[in-house]
Amino acid sequence: MEVTRQSFKDTLRVIYSAVDDADFLAIDGEFSGLSDGPAVSMLTNGMDTPEERYSKLRKHSMDFLLFQFGLCTFRYDQSRAQYFTKAFNFYIFPKPFSRSSPDIKFICQSSSIEFLASQGFDFNKVFRDGIPYLNQEEESQLREQYEERRSQNNGVGTPSYISPTSCKGPMNIPEEHKDFINRVIEKVEALLNNSEKTVSLEPCSGFQRKLIYQTLNWKFPKGLHIETVENDKKERFIQISKVDEDERRRIEQQKHEREQEELNDAVGFSRIIHAISKSGKLVVGHNMLLDVMHTIHQFYCPLPEELDDFKEVTMCVFPRLLDTKLMASTQPFKELITNTSLAELEKQLKEKPFKAPKVECSEGFQSYDTASEQLHEAGYDAYITGLCFISMANYLGSFLTPPRAHISARSKLIEPFYNKLFLMRVADIPYMNISGPDLQPKRDNVLYVTFPKEWKTSDLYQLFSAFGNIQVSWVDDTSAFVSLSQLEQVQIAVNTSQYAESYRIQTYAEYMQAKQKNTHTHRKWGDDGWAEPPPYRGVAMTAVSAVQDRCTVRGKRSISPTQDTHNSFTTADGNWSDYSNTKRIKKDGALSADDSFAGAAGSKTTDDWLRTAPKGGAASQRPETEAQSEDTWPQSSTNQNQGSQATSSGLFDVPQVW
Amino acid sequence: MEVTRQSFKDTLRVIYSAVDDADFLAIDGEFSGLSDGPAVSMLTNGMDTPEERYSKLRKHSMDFLLFQFGLCTFRYDQSRAQYFTKAFNFYIFPKPFSRSSPDIKFICQSSSIEFLASQGFDFNKVFRDGIPYLNQEEESQLREQYEERRSQNNGVGTPSYISPTSCKGPMNIPEEHKDFINRVIEKVEALLNNSEKTVSLEPCSGFQRKLIYQTLNWKFPKGLHIETVENDKKERFIQISKVDEDERRRIEQQKHEREQEELNDAVGFSRIIHAISKSGKLVVGHNMLLDVMHTIHQFYCPLPEELDDFKEVTMCVFPRLLDTKLMASTQPFKELITNTSLAELEKQLKEKPFKAPKVECSEGFQSYDTASEQLHEAGYDAYITGLCFISMANYLGSFLTPPRAHISARSKLIEPFYNKLFLMRVADIPYMNISGPDLQPKRDNVLYVTFPKEWKTSDLYQLFSAFGNIQVSWVDDTSAFVSLSQLEQVQIAVNTSQYAESYRIQTYAEYMQAKQKNTHTHRKWGDDGWAEPPPYRGVAMTAVSAVQDRCTVRGKRSISPTQDTHNSFTTADGNWSDYSNTKRIKKDGALSADDSFAGAAGSKTTDDWLRTAPKGGAASQRPETEAQSEDTWPQSSTNQNQGSQATSSGLFDVPQVW
Repeated sequence: MEVTRQSFKDTLRVIYSAVDDADFLAIDGEFSGLSDGPAVSMLTNGMDTPEERYSKLRKHSMDFLLFQFGLCTFRYDQSRAQYFTKAFNFYIFPKPFSRSSPDIKFICQSSSIEFLASQGFDFNKVFRDGIPYLNQEEESQLREQYEERRSQNNGVGTPSYISPTSCKGPMNIPEEHKDFINRVIEKVEALLNNSEKTVSLEPCSGFQRKLIYQTLNWKFPKGLHIETVENDKKERFIQISKVDEDERRRIEQQKHEREQEELNDAVGFSRIIHAISKSGKLVVGHNMLLDVMHTIHQFYCPLPEELDDFKEVTMCVFPRLLDTKLMASTQPFKELITNTSLAELEKQLKEKPFKAPKVECSEGFQSYDTASEQLHEAGYDAYITGLCFISMANYLGSFLTPPRAHISARSKLIEPFYNKLFLMRVADIPYMNISGPDLQPKRDNVLYVTFPKEWKTSDLYQLFSAFGNIQVSWVDDTSAFVSLSQLEQVQIAVNTSQYAESYRIQTYAEYMQAKQKNTHTHRKWGDDGWAEPPPYRGVAMTAVSAVQDRCTVRGKRSISPTQDTHNSFTTADGNWSDYSNTKRIKKDGALSADDSFAGAAGSKTTDDWLRTAPKGGAASQRPETEAQSEDTWPQSSTNQNQGSQATSSGLFDVPQVW
Repeated sequence: MEVTRQSFKDTLRVIYSAVDDADFLAIDGEFSGLSDGPAVSMLTNGMDTPEERYSKLRKHSMDFLLFQFGLCTFRYDQSRAQYFTKAFNFYIFPKPFSRSSPDIKFICQSSSIEFLASQGFDFNKVFRDGIPYLNQEEESQLREQYEERRSQNNGVGTPSYISPTSCKGPMNIPEEHKDFINRVIEKVEALLNNSEKTVSLEPCSGFQRKLIYQTLNWKFPKGLHIETVENDKKERFIQISKVDEDERRRIEQQKHEREQEELNDAVGFSRIIHAISKSGKLVVGHNMLLDVMHTIHQFYCPLPEELDDFKEVTMCVFPRLLDTKLMASTQPFKELITNTSLAELEKQLKEKPFKAPKVECSEGFQSYDTASEQLHEAGYDAYITGLCFISMANYLGSFLTPPRAHISARSKLIEPFYNKLFLMRVADIPYMNISGPDLQPKRDNVLYVTFPKEWKTSDLYQLFSAFGNIQVSWVDDTSAFVSLSQLEQVQIAVNTSQYAESYRIQTYAEYMQAKQKNTHTHRKWGDDGWAEPPPYRGVAMTAVSAVQDRCTVRGKRSISPTQDTHNSFTTADGNWSDYSNTKRIKKDGALSADDSFAGAAGSKTTDDWLRTAPKGGAASQRPETEAQSEDTWPQSSTNQNQGSQATSSGLFDVPQVW
C-alpha cells in the first residue's frame, strides 16, 4: 500500500493495527545518497573497527534524506499455517510546515539518484506527496511554542512578535506608526458601534501587527477576538471580531484543537516509527545498519557522537533487531548461501534445502510478485526481507527433534541473531553488536602502511611480493592496511621498512595506540558488559535522554542499562571482562568468536554449525525450550535471556550478550 | 521546446542556429535551493557591499544544482516588424558518465523543492532524463585521460591500471595469481592455433586484468586486440581477438571516434553555454546574479574567491548582460513600475505607457501563452524576460525625435543597462557592476549595533525611539545595521552607547575598518577603474585562466582588462579616482549617482530621467547615434562606448563605466 501525505491520516489506523497484530516487522529505507565524502569503498574499509565505521557513516551519510520507507508486517495464522502480510510503502519529504518550521537541507548523490531513477523511482511522488516528519526535539519545541503562545495569549491572538524584553503595558509607539495605529483604533471603535461582526485590516508588517495586538489588548481588554490571517498572496493581515466571553472561549477551544491537529500532522511519519518502537516487536532488515542510523537520525534525534551512545539509543528505539544479511552470513547458512545480496538471497532461499514460506497478502493490500522483481521499492524490499527471515528461521527448525516446519519470530532459536548488524566488508568483525561490546580481533598480522599518494594497489603488491599472499584495505590516498598471511613475517616487514624513505610500516597495535592518543578517551564497558551510568556529553546527552523519555512512557522496557537490568546482560559463567581472555585462549586450537564469523567474508574456518551444535548438546535441549516459549512474548527479556544462555552459547559460539 | 538527455544530440544543430540567428538571448535557471546556511533574508542584507553579497552567495548558494535552464532566442524580422522566438527548456542532471567520472553531490532545500513541486515541476524528468555536463577542468581532465590512454596504449587495450611506478616489462606476478595467468596464456595460445576469432575470459579483478594486459603485451606483442568489456551484471571481463595490423588500426580508429563522441556527450549541456558565450550576444535575465553565478560555477569553473576575479570571468563568459529587474528599477521605468517581480512586470509592460511587443513563436516551437502563466518553468521565464526587455527597450524609443517604435538589442539606448546585475534589497547600491568598480556609498547615517541574541527588531526600535525614523538590516543573531534618518544624530547615538553594557554602537566607517583589518587586502581598482594586471591567487587563478583560454580562442573579445582596453572604461571628464569626490560634491544639492538609484528601493529622489535627459542635450543627439548604430554589431565595444559616453552620462547620471 502506497502511503503519501494525502492518504497518511486516513491510513494511520490501518498501519497501527497492522503493527499491533504482527508477529514481526520488516523494514527498508531508500536514501538520496550514501557518502558525501570519500567513495563508498573508502567508507567501508575492511579494517574498520565498529567505532570507526559508525563514526564515518555518521559523518558522511546522515545528510542524505531517507525519502522512502518500507514497512511490511507479518502475522502468522496458526490455523492456516501461513503468514499474512501487509506491506506499506511510505513517501517521505520534510515539507516545511509553517514559516517558522525548520527548512531542511539534504544532499543528493548523483550516482544514487541516477540508480534509483533507472529503477523507475518516482521522485515526483516524494517531493509533491511526501509525508512530513519531525524529530523529538523539533516536536517538543513546537509543542512548547504552541503552549507558550496559548498561555501568553489570554485570548489576544498571536503575540509571537512580543519579545521577552518588551512590556505588556501601553507600548511606546514610534512616531511614524502613530497615525496608523490611531486609524486602527478608530476602525475598532466603529466596529463596536455598528452592526458588523468583523473588520479586516490591511496587510501590514510584523512590527505593525505587534503594535496593533498590544494597543488593542490594552485599550479593549474584553469583547474582541483578534487573529492574524493570511490572504491569497501570502500577506498577513489582522481580523478583528466582536465576541462575548462564551464565544471567545469557544473560538479559543477550536483553535486549540486545530493546533493539536496541525501538530500531529507535522509530526507526521515519525508517528509510524514511534508505533514500531512502542510495539517492541522484532524488526527485521537486510544489511540494516544504515537504515537504523537514518531512521533514528531523521525521526528521533541527531546521532550521538559515540558508538556506545548510539547503541543505547538504538536499543531504546528498536529493542529487537535482526539483520538477514548477517544471519545469511552466519552458520548454518553461510556454507549454503553463496550470495547474500537481497535479491540473490531471496532466490536461493526458495531452493533446497530451504523452502519458500507460505505467505499471503492480507485483503486490501497490493500483493507483490517475487517473480517480477520490484527491487529497490522500499515496501517490496521490506517484504522479501521478511520472506528471507522466515525461510531461514524455518530452516533452523529442521535441526530440532522432531523437526519443526514453522519457527516463530519469538523462538529462542533466532535469539543468537538479535541486535547484530552486518558490517560491510569487515572480515574479522562481521557485525556490530548493538546490545553489548563488539568483537575485538587482535589483527596481529595486519600492518599499517603510509606512502606517497601516487602509489596504487599494485605498488603495495610489489612491495610485499616477498611476503606471500597479502590483502590490501585502503584507508585513504596515502595509507592502507596490509594483512599478511603469515604472522611470523610481520616483524620482518616492519624491520625492513626502517631503511625506507618513501613509505612507513607500523603494526596494527602501534597504529591503534597512536590513534587512541589522538582521540578522546572512550567510555569503557564495565565488568558486566555495560558501563557505569553513562557520562554523556553535549548533544549526545540531549539526544539520548529525549529518546529515553519516550521509552519510559512505554513501560520501562529495556530503557537504558541501569543497575537493575544489568543482570540480564551478564552471562552465567563469566562476564565481559573475561571476554578478551577467553578469546585469546580459544585462538589456540578451539573455536573462537572471530573464527566463527570470519567466514562471512570468505575466508575458510574449520567450524560449522552442524558440528558445533551437537557438541554443546544444545539441539536436544532446544525443542522443549522452543515449545515452552513458542506463544509467549516476554514483557521483559530478562528471564528468557538467562534461560537461553546455555543454548545459544553452544550453538553459535559468539559472545553471550543475550 | 523541451530538451532532455535523449533529444539533446538531435536538437544541438537547432539550438546552435537559433543562437546564431538571434538578436538577443534570454535565460533563466531553476535551482534545487537558495541558501544552505542563513535564511535568504540574512543572505541578502540591506547593507551588504557587493563583495559581501558575492561572498555570501558563493559560500551558501553554489552547492545547489541548477537543474533546469531556460533559453529563449529572439530574432527581429525587419520586414514584418516583429520578433520570432525559439524557447528551449533544458533539463539538467550530472549523471555520472563513467566509473571514474565525478559523482556530484548537490544540496536540496526543502522549501525550494516544495515550491517547485507546487508549481508542477517535473523532478522525474530532471533525474531520469537530465542532460549531463562537465566544467572546463573536468572536460580537459577527461580529454587528457583519453589521450594518455591512447598514447600508452599502442594497441594494447586499456592499461588504466598501470601505475606510474610500474614497469612495462614482464611483471612480477604474485604467487597466487600465477596459475590464473598461466591459464590465460594457454587460452590465448589455443586461440592463435584454432579457427575462432575471439575468446572472452571470465570476469576478474582490476589487478588481474592489469596482469593479463601486461603479460599478453609482453608475450604477444603483435596480432592481438585486447579489450575490457562489461557484461549485463556490470562485471568487467577481457575479450581477446586475433587481428592483423590493418584490422588493429581500424579498431583503434573506431575506438577513438567512439571516445570522442562519448567525450562530447559527457560535456553535454556545457556546450550550449559555450555556444551562448561564443556568440557574444546580449544575454538578458531577470534578477540574474544567481543565474550567472550558477551557470559559471556549474559549466565553467568553480567561482573565484574574490569579486573582481568573478567579474573578470563573467565578462569573459557573458560579455553583454542585461538585467530586466535592474532596468525596471531604474529611470525612466522606476516611476512607472510599482512591482518588479517578473510576473507583475510582464503584466505592467502590456499596459500604457508601455506596449506588448509583437512576438511570434518560430515554426516547430511550442508557443507560450502569457495569459495562462507557466511561471517557474525556466523556458517560460526566459521567454517573458525577453518580452519585458523588448517592451522597455521600445519605450526608450518613444523619447527620440522622431519617436521610434522598435529599439534594437544593439541600440546605444540600452547600453547604460549593460552588465549591471540587480542587487536584491540593497537600497544604496542597486546593482553589481560587472564591467567596472561598484558604487561606494558613504553610509554616514548607518550605525552597526551589536546586542544580546534575545533582542528582536522591536528592541532596536525601542532603543532608537528618540532618533526618529530608522531602518533595520539584520546581519546575524547579535548584530544589525540601523540607518538613521538624520545625519546629525549619528554621533549622539554613538556617544549614548558608551555607557551601555548590553549593546554597542559603531559607525559604519568604524565597522568597515575593523572588517578590513580582519580580511585579506583587497585588490584595488586603478585610476581608470581597472587594476594593474591582476595578481591572482590559487584556485581563482586556475579558474580565470581556464576560461580565458577559451575566450582567446573566440577572437580576443574583451577578454581581460589590459592596457589598451582601459580607455573604454574611462569617462570623458574624469576617471574613477575622482568618483568619490564628485559624489561628495554632488551630495550638496545636485544629483548624485547614489540618489539616482536609491529610488530603486523606494526612497524618494528629486531627479528623474525626463528632466535630466534634456539637460544634457542628449535626447536630440541620440536619434542620429541610434540610426547610425542600428544595424551594426560592434566587434569591439571600445569605439562605440567612447561615442556614447556623453549621451549616457546625461541620460542616467550613473557612474560612466561604459
